[in-house]
Amino acid sequence: MDFMIRAATPEDCKDISRMIMELAVYENMPDQVKISHEGYTVIGYALFFYTYSTWKGRSVYMEDLYVMPEFRGEFPGKGVGTALMSKVAQVGKEQQCVRLQFSVLNWNTPSLDFYKAKGAQDLTDSEGWHVLRFDGEALDKLAQMAPKN
Amino acid sequence: MDFMIRAATPEDCKDISRMIMELAVYENMPDQVKISHEGYTVIGYALFFYTYSTWKGRSVYMEDLYVMPEFRGEFPGKGVGTALMSKVAQVGKEQQCVRLQFSVLNWNTPSLDFYKAKGAQDLTDSEGWHVLRFDGEALDKLAQMAPKN
Repeated sequence: MDFMIRAATPEDCKDISRMIMELAVYENMPDQVKISHEGYTVIGYALFFYTYSTWKGRSVYMEDLYVMPEFRGEFPGKGVGTALMSKVAQVGKEQQCVRLQFSVLNWNTPSLDFYKAKGAQDLTDSEGWHVLRFDGEALDKLAQMAPKN
Repeated sequence: MDFMIRAATPEDCKDISRMIMELAVYENMPDQVKISHEGYTVIGYALFFYTYSTWKGRSVYMEDLYVMPEFRGEFPGKGVGTALMSKVAQVGKEQQCVRLQFSVLNWNTPSLDFYKAKGAQDLTDSEGWHVLRFDGEALDKLAQMAPKN
């Protein structure tokens, strides 16, 4: 199978929003998606942005990596997921990033195995990092406590 | 004790870099800090940036929250850490963020208790999110696998 990795354009929005929902279904949390749309021709996507580590400097964070089920798996040297993730790493390195981070659900062993086989470290296992979040009322309440100055 | 929460300026760099090292010492990973400096008058800092969730929209990520040991603890309505974090939440809400996220080490129970008491959820415990990372040679190798197009 031949495929091309390219930056998204506004015309891709339909395909991307469809796959955002497919990814959420895969992660068993479809109810959490609060945006919508419909369509096709694009078969996968990686969404990333830059973050900053006060210890190491600029980093790239891969928020989503998704490939439609029928296009998953490793064709010889042709895996779509690997190609997408490699492209994020390449773009990140060009932008002086010293690391690529992302989050994976602990029951998602196919993905965990895939990433680890490529050399990723699980920082929750090795160093004990937990992800915490304020949202909804807890976030509102916290914001209201801010000093006025 | 009186204190003020304000945006950092270039003049704060000495204080901030000192506290970045103090935070790394607290987190038992001082060797990981690859930047340096020395100084004083500023007693804490919060470093944050914006991220994006394809499920929920704009989010704010608090990379670091640090208060010097002698200024920790809850003065009545005057906790420095709470004030710093609340300010991040307030600024985030003003920028239409629907959540505030950050990472905490699992052995750091004083901090975990502090955040949970304010209403934060531990997503690693509740949903199973693990943090993964490529860096060093693994990142180089990954970037080199990117398709040429």
